[in-house]
Amino acid sequence: MSRLSTEITDSAQKVDKFIEQVVSLETEPKVLYKAARHIIDAGGKRLRPFLVLKSCKLVGGAEQDALATAASLELLHTFTLLHDDIMDQDEKRRGVPSVHTKWGVPIAIVAGDLLFAKVYEAITKHTDPKRVKPKRILEVLQQVTKATIELCEGQTRDMLFEDKETVSEAEYLQMIEGKTAALFETSARCGGLLGGANKTQVKRLGEFGRFAGLAFQIIDDVLALTADEKVLKKPVGNDIREGKRTLMVVYALKKASKSQRKQILDTLGNQNASAEQIKATIALIDSLGAIDYAKKVADRYINKSKKALAKFADGADKEDLLSLSDLIFARQH
Amino acid sequence: MSRLSTEITDSAQKVDKFIEQVVSLETEPKVLYKAARHIIDAGGKRLRPFLVLKSCKLVGGAEQDALATAASLELLHTFTLLHDDIMDQDEKRRGVPSVHTKWGVPIAIVAGDLLFAKVYEAITKHTDPKRVKPKRILEVLQQVTKATIELCEGQTRDMLFEDKETVSEAEYLQMIEGKTAALFETSARCGGLLGGANKTQVKRLGEFGRFAGLAFQIIDDVLALTADEKVLKKPVGNDIREGKRTLMVVYALKKASKSQRKQILDTLGNQNASAEQIKATIALIDSLGAIDYAKKVADRYINKSKKALAKFADGADKEDLLSLSDLIFARQH
Repeated sequence: MSRLSTEITDSAQKVDKFIEQVVSLETEPKVLYKAARHIIDAGGKRLRPFLVLKSCKLVGGAEQDALATAASLELLHTFTLLHDDIMDQDEKRRGVPSVHTKWGVPIAIVAGDLLFAKVYEAITKHTDPKRVKPKRILEVLQQVTKATIELCEGQTRDMLFEDKETVSEAEYLQMIEGKTAALFETSARCGGLLGGANKTQVKRLGEFGRFAGLAFQIIDDVLALTADEKVLKKPVGNDIREGKRTLMVVYALKKASKSQRKQILDTLGNQNASAEQIKATIALIDSLGAIDYAKKVADRYINKSKKALAKFADGADKEDLLSLSDLIFARQH
Repeated sequence: MSRLSTEITDSAQKVDKFIEQVVSLETEPKVLYKAARHIIDAGGKRLRPFLVLKSCKLVGGAEQDALATAASLELLHTFTLLHDDIMDQDEKRRGVPSVHTKWGVPIAIVAGDLLFAKVYEAITKHTDPKRVKPKRILEVLQQVTKATIELCEGQTRDMLFEDKETVSEAEYLQMIEGKTAALFETSARCGGLLGGANKTQVKRLGEFGRFAGLAFQIIDDVLALTADEKVLKKPVGNDIREGKRTLMVVYALKKASKSQRKQILDTLGNQNASAEQIKATIALIDSLGAIDYAKKVADRYINKSKKALAKFADGADKEDLLSLSDLIFARQH
């Protein structure tokens, strides 16, 4: 895992340097740019940019051709975080106050909008049309746009679930396909497109990203219930309080007895639930085998993601992507 | 003005038909698409799309090449309306409840995001690369993106003004350059780009749009204080209650005596101001010559916009654009 860590850090540094230029803190009105940078500067592993850059290299492309798009995928991701935090009323993110907590909802909305626009500015202004054909750049833009539309649909489904009596596993998976997997899929596809991949390669990279993204979200949901609060950098059990229908909740509600079901539903989405009540409900969900089940499903997706890379030539870049899959499964935060 | 009305209606019908396809009410999750269409379906004159289509034709282009971009400029405009209404806490728009009033803030945020993504989908998927070179399409996308960034900056400035002691006329103009004029400028420029205009033509069209946009916003602000509420389709004087620093307020505060200044500042941004208080303050602003002054400034921009078209060949399309300038000045709502 050590080589992978170094690679992730290296690519994150390049991406951050790029972001510091396209979303400069010196631009007026400064509060807008500060708010847009706040969550980016607070941390994050830049996994989506890493996926773009590695996918580009895997098909023999040059990293420089994919850097703008790599960074733009992080901007896109951050834009959704800013808006999601408002929608979910999350007060903390990456150990710092969320943007709307610090500057208010209006600034958080417009800072998110700015980041979204910067996605397109980064790609159209900083991808060299002498190196990447304009037609290819347009394909990248289409891909990024498609993912964003899926993101909006996924985020809406996630919110609608909170008021829904029963959510099936299939509905949950459809929701996270949009909310999370679409962006991972797009990152890998764009990297391929910018590296000169052919259609089959782009498709396979997309599958790799999509399955890795599904696993990522499931593990993310697991960690939100089980991780150490200091490592998680936000309150454990927030998802329960917000009424999120994670795979674990879906599974637990299916397995629960009538009284257990009542206990879960009484806590789910209950803003006034005490820390003890949340803790007891997490323990109940765990005892129903839901956390083990979620890990099993995530593991299955990790294996599927790795299989999608089978036909690519072996080498360091492929190794890194395979290790990335393992990291997604094994991460602690 | 009658030929112009027919032309505007014709172009609006084409644009609306296109929008009904790219933002279809049949798409799941339906609440998201309903919310995204709500304000579009409630009315509006589609002036920005009209500007795109006419600018394209003025330089000898085919309307079909500009239709997707024309529609996308309306989507972009609507996206900003959805988010602005949240930020300004406006409950009504075009005679109907604003999106966040009807569906809540989270859906209004994500519906706006969806419309923004649809801007890029419309242009990249529905502009025929056999008719418009990919490089040109990229220029259009850059232009649209630039305008959006300026919009975000302008909207932020508008909000910051509400807490600012003194706002100068120059600051006000800079704010509306971003908030309104950038989109008019971009509409005209994109129409030119898609119609095959050369650089000078694109620049002149941009000037036409920008000056017309500045006049549009100033007149919009005037109408928000003076129009008939039934025609305005939202409460008269909302701007005063929200503390908006319009050109009239900026001018009135400059001309006011100490006690008049106090009266204006006591009402401005005062959520609890009574209808009578608002009415009295509007009368005071008027008596200080601020409304006449704003109209004079708008008229000056209208003339500048017309002048920007001087070098284009005479004909029906040019006549229509000149009449559009007059309409912007003379409109009642």
